[in-house]
Amino acid sequence: MSETTSVLDLEEAGAVLAAEAARFASFGWMRGTSGNLSVVLSRTPLQLAVTASGRDKGELTAADVVLTDASGAALGAGRPSAEAALHARVAALTGAGAVVHVHTVASVAMGHRSPGGIAFRDLEMLKGLGHGTHEVAVTLPVIENSQDMAVLGDRLEAALSPGMPAVVVAGHGLYVWGADPREARHRTEVVEWLLELELTRS
Amino acid sequence: MSETTSVLDLEEAGAVLAAEAARFASFGWMRGTSGNLSVVLSRTPLQLAVTASGRDKGELTAADVVLTDASGAALGAGRPSAEAALHARVAALTGAGAVVHVHTVASVAMGHRSPGGIAFRDLEMLKGLGHGTHEVAVTLPVIENSQDMAVLGDRLEAALSPGMPAVVVAGHGLYVWGADPREARHRTEVVEWLLELELTRS
Amino acid sequence: MSETTSVLDLEEAGAVLAAEAARFASFGWMRGTSGNLSVVLSRTPLQLAVTASGRDKGELTAADVVLTDASGAALGAGRPSAEAALHARVAALTGAGAVVHVHTVASVAMGHRSPGGIAFRDLEMLKGLGHGTHEVAVTLPVIENSQDMAVLGDRLEAALSPGMPAVVVAGHGLYVWGADPREARHRTEVVEWLLELELTRS
Amino acid sequence: MSETTSVLDLEEAGAVLAAEAARFASFGWMRGTSGNLSVVLSRTPLQLAVTASGRDKGELTAADVVLTDASGAALGAGRPSAEAALHARVAALTGAGAVVHVHTVASVAMGHRSPGGIAFRDLEMLKGLGHGTHEVAVTLPVIENSQDMAVLGDRLEAALSPGMPAVVVAGHGLYVWGADPREARHRTEVVEWLLELELTRS
Repeated sequence: MSETTSVLDLEEAGAVLAAEAARFASFGWMRGTSGNLSVVLSRTPLQLAVTASGRDKGELTAADVVLTDASGAALGAGRPSAEAALHARVAALTGAGAVVHVHTVASVAMGHRSPGGIAFRDLEMLKGLGHGTHEVAVTLPVIENSQDMAVLGDRLEAALSPGMPAVVVAGHGLYVWGADPREARHRTEVVEWLLELELTRS
Repeated sequence: MSETTSVLDLEEAGAVLAAEAARFASFGWMRGTSGNLSVVLSRTPLQLAVTASGRDKGELTAADVVLTDASGAALGAGRPSAEAALHARVAALTGAGAVVHVHTVASVAMGHRSPGGIAFRDLEMLKGLGHGTHEVAVTLPVIENSQDMAVLGDRLEAALSPGMPAVVVAGHGLYVWGADPREARHRTEVVEWLLELELTRS
Repeated sequence: MSETTSVLDLEEAGAVLAAEAARFASFGWMRGTSGNLSVVLSRTPLQLAVTASGRDKGELTAADVVLTDASGAALGAGRPSAEAALHARVAALTGAGAVVHVHTVASVAMGHRSPGGIAFRDLEMLKGLGHGTHEVAVTLPVIENSQDMAVLGDRLEAALSPGMPAVVVAGHGLYVWGADPREARHRTEVVEWLLELELTRS
Repeated sequence: MSETTSVLDLEEAGAVLAAEAARFASFGWMRGTSGNLSVVLSRTPLQLAVTASGRDKGELTAADVVLTDASGAALGAGRPSAEAALHARVAALTGAGAVVHVHTVASVAMGHRSPGGIAFRDLEMLKGLGHGTHEVAVTLPVIENSQDMAVLGDRLEAALSPGMPAVVVAGHGLYVWGADPREARHRTEVVEWLLELELTRS
């Protein structure tokens, strides 16, 4: 019997993810059909609602969502994003309840400039990632891209950085996570703001 | 008797193109009355619905569309865009069912910086153009501008690049095509994202 | 008896200008309460409807407009923009039926970089200013700012450039004109696009 | 008995601040849950309505507001922003009736480039801060950040600059004030425009 960690059923999760995706699409962070979002519906066994593959992220409906297991395999109808396995891996590794993956120009540009990781310090906006003060130094990891989600997940696990609920995948985009879709949204906005600032300053 | 390759009649095509144009206009990609869109209504003989000339692309209605033949000449009422002939040429050359032509700052700026073509490689976003992996290298051709659509069409034909359903016209803008208006839209968004990334990096 | 050159009465003109202003405000071109728009209601004697001073340009109503004469003085109720006199001067000098004045970052930045005028050539977008081909070279004049509208008008008159229905006022913003509000809008969008391109390239 | 300086009660103030916040959020100036707004409800004793902490600034309702005293302490239900004390300090020091605090990329980037203050001169947009002409030179102060609102308030007081109703907090964001929320909004838009211009020019 599953331990429910979310009050959402699959359709409710689809509605939430559609609204979040429409917001990110309006910012230009999900051009084409890029990016995907997920929310954890059950922790044990791990089950996630993941946005369906190949859809315009500004036009999702509550039905454009797929139930997947901890390996990213579909448990019901629909084809999940190819990256569903990485969403599940992030949820398992970090305990996050929601994962956002967007393709922003700033994340790919900064990943190219700083392939060893992007350092932030003395910025009030870092409080939006849970820090109690701006007087902190954190690093946004940059990992190499791969089409193999197990490889990408191993790289993400190895790169996880304290106080930074996000990773840049080089030449690809940004992963950010939080306790629920709203926290994941706010952290995504904060990390993207930080990246846009660095892009402007460097 | 024509072989119908689209379920759309002219007015339906007009409604689809008006919605697509409003979207692109909201991005600032069709300033003034610039740019034009088309969809193939018949493959044999080749007939296209092309947006009417001189209209604000954020304010098109289903009636602001003209039926044209393979030479870009109007088959019914209305004045098609001067570039209708190039839309038809693209459709004939590539088998595309829909063509997007937008005037983006990034396409003209990058065409100026890289007049020999704009190279992209190792970018996840290339999967949005139909590639199975990011580990691919493709080139977005840049061709010289002309007011003579036959000349421009010859240049486009000579420049066509494998795995890149798009061409930049120097000092002018961007042509992108796909199987239908939605695929053409998504590819346009992907190519523009790639151009904005390169503009940021270079 | 006045020779009517517009079918608009003052309230209709106010409604048109409010809609145009809301559009430009949405682009960030009328921050604070900056900028102003006008439309000619009578040619002889010259009378214009000019947006009222000090209002948020994203929130104008049809009533936020003032009737002015060729000197920019109010003919009825309301306080016109201080720049109403320059709008009237532009209409008198060029025969324009509508004038747009916006404060764009790109116009002020480019006016600073190219105080002797901003040259454009070989750009398809120039066709949006009435040219039949991209193979043309035109200059967008840059004039020194003044709080004295007569001085500013003299500078504008001396600077008028063939084939360019626009002037940049240094440290200030952009004036663009056309036969009616819609043509003035489209030309404003074209000139701003050209300025954004040059800002990116330079 | 309090001297009322506003016709707004707390709920009306909340509705006004929610609308202002939604506007700023749409510009990307309040990413995550950053920034906060206030309006003075009573001058003697000083009482302000301040946006509640930790909320998405694009989704505030009239209820997401807290009544605070001159020290920033809550007088009723709700948790005010941690920066409520600085809002109150600004209102006390300057006589302002409304205070805007936003996190813009341009303010932090320019604060980094010009830690001794950002100079503006010969710009028409300065008239939007109350100057009668563009022929004026003013400085936007930049102060060091602190988590101690008393320290930050002292720095702000020491840095106040004639003719500039705004201060940049380094690594943090922008404070702007005015007689009422609308004037504070317009001044915020003007100061941000000036910062974006300088960022482009430098």
